[in-house]
Parts: sequence; structure tokens; C-alpha cells
Amino acid sequence: MIIIGIDPGLTCTGWGLVAKAGSRLSHVANGQIRTDASAGMADRLVELDAELTRVILEHRPDAGAVEEVFVNVNPQSTLKLGQARGVAMLSLARAGLKVAEYSTKVVKKALVGTGGAEKAQVQAMLKVLLPGVKLAGADAADALAVAITHANMMGSHR
Amino acid sequence: MIIIGIDPGLTCTGWGLVAKAGSRLSHVANGQIRTDASAGMADRLVELDAELTRVILEHRPDAGAVEEVFVNVNPQSTLKLGQARGVAMLSLARAGLKVAEYSTKVVKKALVGTGGAEKAQVQAMLKVLLPGVKLAGADAADALAVAITHANMMGSHR
Repeated sequence: MIIIGIDPGLTCTGWGLVAKAGSRLSHVANGQIRTDASAGMADRLVELDAELTRVILEHRPDAGAVEEVFVNVNPQSTLKLGQARGVAMLSLARAGLKVAEYSTKVVKKALVGTGGAEKAQVQAMLKVLLPGVKLAGADAADALAVAITHANMMGSHR
Repeated sequence: MIIIGIDPGLTCTGWGLVAKAGSRLSHVANGQIRTDASAGMADRLVELDAELTRVILEHRPDAGAVEEVFVNVNPQSTLKLGQARGVAMLSLARAGLKVAEYSTKVVKKALVGTGGAEKAQVQAMLKVLLPGVKLAGADAADALAVAITHANMMGSHR
């Protein structure tokens, strides 16, 4: 079973895929999608959707999960983030995937054992859980962490 | 030339289409898309995208415009609104439409002559500009007002 995790953002969206066989996890791929900041909003959303759809078609995940975004104090930033997040959720759901949502706190707790863990701790744990993984960046790391969280949560319901 | 206007929202998205021939405007269609509040976020976004795409395929607009949404003081509401707005913009742009954006103030000024106009004034003016129009609701009325604003703005550039 292949699981895709997404850490959405208008400027940069991280994505990461893990494979789960029994209780064993392995890394499939991870990356980041940056949209052209000089383009109009609609064009940036089309770019994000097209790239995510390309990733989904290439790796054919069976389930998806999206990070519950930090709600910024700046309403305009929150609105932009919402727009990118809406498009990311739509891209996954249109591909027939069920889309789970996890807060940053739950993801950190799932990986490191505490909801207040530092980003560096999460990334260190990623390298333990997915030996040899090369992280495309901080957002891709967050996305892999979301995918692992979902893999573990799904397991716990069986 | 056919222009579609959208007033986005997760609970209810208004849409409205007008036809422009020279300086003459006429009503094509208007309606509202309500998503199932008991469904998950991703499913609601899929529903919104599917319905908007159906409207676009039926009426084949040549240009589109989306209302710049009121940024709520509640961050969670702003995020939800952003998600719906992102999907609406994507639906239009994926259909090959250029997507313009207008603030409520600009729309009111375009229709009634003052940015502080009441909703009732805007709706009264809609009935003058589009004789015989039946409004599907307040959000559909706002969407038609956005479409008319875009029709007028496009005209002013020629």
C-alpha cells in the first residue's frame, strides 16, 4: 500500500510517498512544488494541481493525508494558504483517494513522541524510519512525516 | 461573448453568466452550489469542482471573474473560504479561462456607482440591467454582479 502525504502551501507544497507492507515502511519518493510567484493566482493553482496530479499518476498512491495548516494571524496569508490547500485536497480526492487530515502536533507526536518536537528532531526520525532517504527540503520532510503518521494511524485501526 | 462570475463559499457558491454583444448585456443563467455540510472537506471540494465544471461545460463562457472574498476575522472560516475559492479559481482556469478578481467594493461601484451600496440596491440594479432575470439567491446575485463588472471592465479596455 502506498500513502501520499502533503504539506500544502502556495509558494511551496511538499509531497512525500511511503510504502507500507505489513508493519514495514519504506520510502518511495518526495519532492517540492514551487509555483511562479510572478504568475496570477489562478495560474499558480493550475500549476500546483498539474504537478500534484503528475506525482499521483506516477506513483499511484492508495491513500492520502494532508497536514492541517498553521492558521496564520495574517488573514490574507491564511486565505492564500487555504486556496493552495483546497487545490491539494481536490487533486487527491479527484484521483479517488480518501484524504485524511492531521495537525502538526499529531504528526510530531506520531514520529517523535511529543507534540512539541523540533523540526530537526522530526527530520532525524525520518532518516531512522526511512533509511537512505534524501529529503528534497523542509516541506517535503513534513509531507513524508504526514504520510508516515497516516500509515501508522491506518495500521492502528486494523 | 459569455462571461461567468463566481461568488465563492464552502457552504454556498453563487455563479452567474451574462452575454455581451457590443455594449449590450443579457442574462444567460445563474445558480447556487451548496455542498453537503455532513461530508468531509475533500468530498465537498470535489462536489464544488464537479458542479462548477458542469456549469462551464453547459454554458461555455469565454472569460471568468471571481469575487475577492471578505476576509473573516475568524481564521478557520477564512481558511475554509480560501479552500473553496482556490477550487473555484482552479475550475475556471483549468477550463482555459482567464480569471479576473474584483473586490466587493469595486463590484458595488460598477453596478450602483458607490462602493458602499446595500445588497438590495445591487439586486435592484441587476433587475434593471438584466430585465426578467430570476435570481437563485443572494450568492447568485453577487456572482452576476461580478460577471457584469468584468463585462464592463473588459469593454473599457477596448
